[in-house]
Amino acid sequence: MKKNLLIMTEMPEYFISLADQNFNTHKLWKQKDEDSYLFEIKESIDAIAVMGGYKITPDLMKSMPNLKIIACYGVGYDAIDVNFAKSLGIKVTNTPEVLNDEVADTAIALMLCVYKKIVKADSFARDNQWPNGDFPLTKKFTGTRLGIVGMGRIGKAIAKRAEAFDCEISYNSRTKKDVKYKFYNDLNELAKKVDTLCVITPGGKETEKLINKDVLNNLGKNGVLINVARGTVIDQDELINCLENKMILAAGLDVYTNEPHIPEKLMKLANTVLLPHIASGTVETRNAMGQLVFDNIKNYFEGTPLISEVN
Amino acid sequence: MKKNLLIMTEMPEYFISLADQNFNTHKLWKQKDEDSYLFEIKESIDAIAVMGGYKITPDLMKSMPNLKIIACYGVGYDAIDVNFAKSLGIKVTNTPEVLNDEVADTAIALMLCVYKKIVKADSFARDNQWPNGDFPLTKKFTGTRLGIVGMGRIGKAIAKRAEAFDCEISYNSRTKKDVKYKFYNDLNELAKKVDTLCVITPGGKETEKLINKDVLNNLGKNGVLINVARGTVIDQDELINCLENKMILAAGLDVYTNEPHIPEKLMKLANTVLLPHIASGTVETRNAMGQLVFDNIKNYFEGTPLISEVN
Repeated sequence: MKKNLLIMTEMPEYFISLADQNFNTHKLWKQKDEDSYLFEIKESIDAIAVMGGYKITPDLMKSMPNLKIIACYGVGYDAIDVNFAKSLGIKVTNTPEVLNDEVADTAIALMLCVYKKIVKADSFARDNQWPNGDFPLTKKFTGTRLGIVGMGRIGKAIAKRAEAFDCEISYNSRTKKDVKYKFYNDLNELAKKVDTLCVITPGGKETEKLINKDVLNNLGKNGVLINVARGTVIDQDELINCLENKMILAAGLDVYTNEPHIPEKLMKLANTVLLPHIASGTVETRNAMGQLVFDNIKNYFEGTPLISEVN
Repeated sequence: MKKNLLIMTEMPEYFISLADQNFNTHKLWKQKDEDSYLFEIKESIDAIAVMGGYKITPDLMKSMPNLKIIACYGVGYDAIDVNFAKSLGIKVTNTPEVLNDEVADTAIALMLCVYKKIVKADSFARDNQWPNGDFPLTKKFTGTRLGIVGMGRIGKAIAKRAEAFDCEISYNSRTKKDVKYKFYNDLNELAKKVDTLCVITPGGKETEKLINKDVLNNLGKNGVLINVARGTVIDQDELINCLENKMILAAGLDVYTNEPHIPEKLMKLANTVLLPHIASGTVETRNAMGQLVFDNIKNYFEGTPLISEVN
């Protein structure tokens, strides 16, 4: 008998198609009255698939006596109370590894675009401003000092790329890692020593506003901030203030505190490159993530080991 | 006695300042009547400094009996008839090496921006389109097959960076080089085998329209063209035709046939990233180039070896 899979949110077609072929799927986001739909099906649900960032409350978990696994699409599972899930014997999986390269590509793209003002240069060329004079000189990226906040899998993928640009790489994380880069126990010390600070920590309570006023001040007026982690990791109001007052040079952001809303002040700032959370957003990587969400659920019910369990 | 240096074109302040301190400088571009000014000073001129791309005719060289050196700012010296200069005993220098990293950074920035549609994503975020739905998925760059046309110093710098993105690198050039990448004698064969074709050959007659209709057809509808060489290397009309008719996927261009003019058709195409020849355009790199122009001229008159002689 096919297992009952609740798909909470709209998800990429590649995954939906795999799910439809293998499970009884229940598509919450397609329902007019989500609450009454949930009430009807909750006792039958064996598994949940959900986009990363979508909150799965303890109450929801408690309401589903047969729920065995929550498979999260994305590497960040900060919207799920993992300890509570564990207390109920519910497995939680995410999609690590398959998106490391993609997020690292986005991080490097943001660095190059901030340093070389690529977005502005394209507008300048496209608006035919060039015949009136050359585009102003920008800032060299190769050879700069890069500080990475969070030296996990993606941090390492960013470092690997930045090495090819002869960047001097150092990092801050909760513990020293087995890497050749210089470790800073103190994030403020790291911020002082680098040209670019690139944030790629997990989200959640532990890292909330980790990048605060002090860190930004230590990064200083020639410093560049890159965020490909979670919007919550940065004190967004302080960042806007620092950018407006040239207390840091520029920022390249893929994530924001209250997505999909980007503060208007940030949009108006010339010293920003703003992306709409596209870090892992390529067809190839999203298909690989969908496959991994599916494989985790399938493995669970076939009794084979989960590929990427988080609890 | 100070030597007489003719500065043909406006040049970066850093170089002008060095030149003013060490030579009698004659600034052609500041004159109302350039022809009569040249006529007056031509017999006194010992050296010329000029921006790359500005034409130095044989007639001009012949008119200056004391001219010993033409120091070109930029790596391309295709606007100078080097053989003719040699026949008159005039040295020609350029500014290689110091801009390798910068041009390679620009090439990789173009690749990432084309694959991940960074310029469009920034507009999407800034125009507040995100609350209406996610930005469309793009295309993964890491792991793609990169063909480099021209495996000189800059080609190698591009390859070094692309390796960190796990690109499978192959190349075409006049002769096989001592590099580990796969060599294609036939440019059309290379174009068939790659996802991205990145052009970084010298300009001039020998490479004129090297990237023609056949090469573009062989690159094919999923292929990306990057040009950080000279506009002349590509048949620009054919490129526009291929982009308009989706015969190739996209292009990232820093150079054009008739700079600073970019064809309006190119500006209107959504599948392009267009830069106004900024490849080496950072403060750091332009200062290093200015220093090298100056050092070559200074060395010549001090009787020490030229640093970067081209003939």
